[in-house]
Amino acid sequence: MSQYRDTAAGTIGSEAVGSTVKIAGWVARRRDHGGVAFIDVRDASGIVQVVADPDVIDEVASLRMEYCVAVSGEVRPRPDGTTNPDLPTGMVEIGAEEIQILSPADALPFMLDDRVEVDERVRLEYRYLDLRRASMAANIAARSKATAAIRRTLDDLGFLEIETPTLVASTPEGARDMLVPSRLREGHFYALPQSPQLFKQLLMVSGVERYFQIARCYRDEDLRSDRQLEFTQLDLEGSFWGQDEVLDTIEQTLVAATEAVRGIRLTEPFPRLTWQEVMDRYGSDKPDLRFGMEIADLADLFESSEFGVFTSALESGGAIRGINTGVRDFPRSKADELTELAKANGAKGLVWMVVNDDRSLRSPVAKFLSDAEIRGVIDRLEAQPGDVLLLVADRWKTAVTVLGALRNVLGRPADHEDLAFLWVTDFPMFEEEEDGSITFSHHPFTTPQDVEMMATQPEHALARAYDAVLNGVELGSGSVRIHDPELQRKVFDILGIDSETAERMFGWFLRALRFGPPPHAGFAFGIDRLVMILQNEDSIREVIPFPKTQSGVDPLTGSPTLVDDRQLAELGITLRPETRTKLEES
Amino acid sequence: MSQYRDTAAGTIGSEAVGSTVKIAGWVARRRDHGGVAFIDVRDASGIVQVVADPDVIDEVASLRMEYCVAVSGEVRPRPDGTTNPDLPTGMVEIGAEEIQILSPADALPFMLDDRVEVDERVRLEYRYLDLRRASMAANIAARSKATAAIRRTLDDLGFLEIETPTLVASTPEGARDMLVPSRLREGHFYALPQSPQLFKQLLMVSGVERYFQIARCYRDEDLRSDRQLEFTQLDLEGSFWGQDEVLDTIEQTLVAATEAVRGIRLTEPFPRLTWQEVMDRYGSDKPDLRFGMEIADLADLFESSEFGVFTSALESGGAIRGINTGVRDFPRSKADELTELAKANGAKGLVWMVVNDDRSLRSPVAKFLSDAEIRGVIDRLEAQPGDVLLLVADRWKTAVTVLGALRNVLGRPADHEDLAFLWVTDFPMFEEEEDGSITFSHHPFTTPQDVEMMATQPEHALARAYDAVLNGVELGSGSVRIHDPELQRKVFDILGIDSETAERMFGWFLRALRFGPPPHAGFAFGIDRLVMILQNEDSIREVIPFPKTQSGVDPLTGSPTLVDDRQLAELGITLRPETRTKLEES
Repeated sequence: MSQYRDTAAGTIGSEAVGSTVKIAGWVARRRDHGGVAFIDVRDASGIVQVVADPDVIDEVASLRMEYCVAVSGEVRPRPDGTTNPDLPTGMVEIGAEEIQILSPADALPFMLDDRVEVDERVRLEYRYLDLRRASMAANIAARSKATAAIRRTLDDLGFLEIETPTLVASTPEGARDMLVPSRLREGHFYALPQSPQLFKQLLMVSGVERYFQIARCYRDEDLRSDRQLEFTQLDLEGSFWGQDEVLDTIEQTLVAATEAVRGIRLTEPFPRLTWQEVMDRYGSDKPDLRFGMEIADLADLFESSEFGVFTSALESGGAIRGINTGVRDFPRSKADELTELAKANGAKGLVWMVVNDDRSLRSPVAKFLSDAEIRGVIDRLEAQPGDVLLLVADRWKTAVTVLGALRNVLGRPADHEDLAFLWVTDFPMFEEEEDGSITFSHHPFTTPQDVEMMATQPEHALARAYDAVLNGVELGSGSVRIHDPELQRKVFDILGIDSETAERMFGWFLRALRFGPPPHAGFAFGIDRLVMILQNEDSIREVIPFPKTQSGVDPLTGSPTLVDDRQLAELGITLRPETRTKLEES
Repeated sequence: MSQYRDTAAGTIGSEAVGSTVKIAGWVARRRDHGGVAFIDVRDASGIVQVVADPDVIDEVASLRMEYCVAVSGEVRPRPDGTTNPDLPTGMVEIGAEEIQILSPADALPFMLDDRVEVDERVRLEYRYLDLRRASMAANIAARSKATAAIRRTLDDLGFLEIETPTLVASTPEGARDMLVPSRLREGHFYALPQSPQLFKQLLMVSGVERYFQIARCYRDEDLRSDRQLEFTQLDLEGSFWGQDEVLDTIEQTLVAATEAVRGIRLTEPFPRLTWQEVMDRYGSDKPDLRFGMEIADLADLFESSEFGVFTSALESGGAIRGINTGVRDFPRSKADELTELAKANGAKGLVWMVVNDDRSLRSPVAKFLSDAEIRGVIDRLEAQPGDVLLLVADRWKTAVTVLGALRNVLGRPADHEDLAFLWVTDFPMFEEEEDGSITFSHHPFTTPQDVEMMATQPEHALARAYDAVLNGVELGSGSVRIHDPELQRKVFDILGIDSETAERMFGWFLRALRFGPPPHAGFAFGIDRLVMILQNEDSIREVIPFPKTQSGVDPLTGSPTLVDDRQLAELGITLRPETRTKLEES
């Protein structure tokens, strides 16, 4: 293989007994026993045991953990009682004839053992050691396998991978844009792209027809909730396409990635549920389908109830929904926590019911309910004695959202051992902000399903927009885009965007739509998240080789760093006096 | 295929006659003749002719160039005398039964015809139209094919594609770094990477062993000589590797890319010539091997010459070299131009000789030369009557460089129809700057071939560094890296970099080398340049979908743009007063 080795350490099995091999790798473990040293040598392929006599081979004396070595010797069977059938190389050992220290290692800042918990900051500072751990090496390899499988799938389908620029124009709503000062055009700035969205639509106008890119994107936001300033997405678009073609294609990439990483073939097609349906059944637009606990509509049971909370909810157009959480023995603290969660999600209250052995209900509200109502609830929720039922009477959105949150807290598996992919389709055109105003759910080039309804009843208008969801995590989203300039104008009108504003915000893009744009549709999903789940990790930082901390710092290289005033001057910028003062004070 | 079409336009042949098809694409040409319209409809697969009667199909009246349309109709043979065997669809036409205008197009700013010369700024402003031209569509597709072939090759060889960060620490010599102000850490800056060099070496320290990445890189330099602020390179590194493993692997990627784009299988291995050899024979470290005109060493012929220019050159340690340019009839202006070129390259003069029919020489210096010397030159350069010979007597480097430049001017093919790949190995450790000082040819982690020689005779020290060259263009370079901290210290010593400076410049990287780094070696080559040559183009902008102009501007989107003071303030920066004044004045 090279001057340093002729054999991969992890591949040496019994069939190699008697042959002389040369391996190279790292000292993963060393024990001294009976006058000889037993050294586990690790390379990318695995581990093999080397046995060496310090009296014969001088280098053995100085060998420490993680030294990089080359070892020559004869493969021989391990003595009886010392074999390890769990290891591919567990039946053999190498009797070292020569050991060359390729490079020494300082004392390690932490043990390179998956079972050892190490502070993440220290792991990132010594990421090159952290990546030698088996789990991290597997994560990095899995990521490469996943992207290679996605690429092959799309290449085989005739897609072109096309690189769009990463030095782009800042968008007018670009508060989250990261900026790059231009040297050649002093005082002007490039932005790093939040996504290749407009460029991929331009490629459709260019006649490309089948585009994809595994693209680096940038978003300058707080790094809470496991985000990174730079992230990677599969970005895809097709001309003369509608929703079905997108979903079919993306599904193939997800199947290929899963097979490459997990070795399992997913069942296709994935479930396709409308937004209305997942909200009704799971109280979330990214439901976790790995467990049931579906939300039931109980309104009809209480239409003429004497329980005022229920009837007044219904009278004001609200809903009564419930879930059966199963047999539970909640401590008081957990119950309080769930009630708090319900209130945090906007519910006025949470109704608890426990099913007694006689199929009556133990509940603070039981005394207000008729026998028929109690029977109705128990039947509707298929409840058995001991089951704990949770009900919410409120505005529809609040009722399902609250129960969806409770459902997740109570039912969601702690890991990603199982996988449940699904599509959520027919999203609303608009979503309500916290202040009650409505904004676009997707970008303003998304096709409405019914333009007239969008104008007259925006709260009910649906979009040709869809999400991919895995294990309760939104992987990505897409839509059928507007290609008809006339329709685009109508949509802007309804959004209250006049032509001058539209020109200022999207002028160059709108101009492209004047030159025969084809109908097109597309999608983007996050590679970091997909690989995180496939690798059963709980943070994207575990599947990014060199991530930043949540404060955007790289403890390994120290970036971001201070920069010379002189260097800034060449870019036409300087620090703000306030910033300079802050820096000096800190 | 979708609701818009069931057939790819460019694939409809005689076997489809009689069937009804639905196609979608763009109006590439329209002629009206005998009361019917002949419309060429183009999609990504090609072009087909549609025949439609304006009296029957209303839409025909309004169809203009580049309208996007869907057409249904029956495939029928073209009438005798109207077939076009050059076109895959040239035997058939579609008798339109229905034409749907999917979107109209404004009048075009230029004709979408490869034969029409259009100002590049206009092409870039309407890049989405420019990319519809056949040559540009082919370039974009070729680029995708090349990178897909490279990736498959490396994936099959067990390489992992690993994404390294693009928000990195600025390098101390980072005058060419593009900077990104940090919002979370006011007053601090990320840099965009000039290459993943240090991260890929860290990956070797991490035990990855086989890394590659098709990586976006950034260099803030004047965009003369066909460069871009952002460019793409294949970046590769292998552990326990030396030069041979790198060259073999990179060669496979180049063979695969060439086969994918050109459909030809290159002969392997590529020629491997040392730097000394290519300088001696071709006067360039990136020689174009598509033609001969090799430089000959003539020194021995003139050791006892009576021609003072020659003998004094030899006496001062210089060289006498020459080329045979073949039979030429140079106009005076061309001759002057070549002499100027020689002088611009540092030569004191250029000696011209023309071989007469009687094998004597016509030359201003002929009278100073003996018959033996004249015979010697003619023999050495294998000259025939009419051949023009050019000689330079000067310092070795000047002599070969001047003749190399003349050789290129006189012999280099104007296009890239033929391909000549080669490796240039054994580069010097140092190169001479214009001011006579010496600097590192590669980066300071490049392994010297002989440490002692580097210390005692730096001008003769060679590095384990190598370049890939194609048709006289440097595609990329690589080296065997230093993995031994002791050797690294020696190299820094010789370079006059003390340990404090080394720590400041490369501290975090040098620390990684203290933890068992493996021997490793790697390479990087430019994707833009490779595809440019494979596609026989003369600028990388022809193979980049959305390039910037030479002043770093995107005429399509207007980037870089001005940015709100408020937005800058959030990043802790502001425009310099001088810059602000300049902007206001302009």
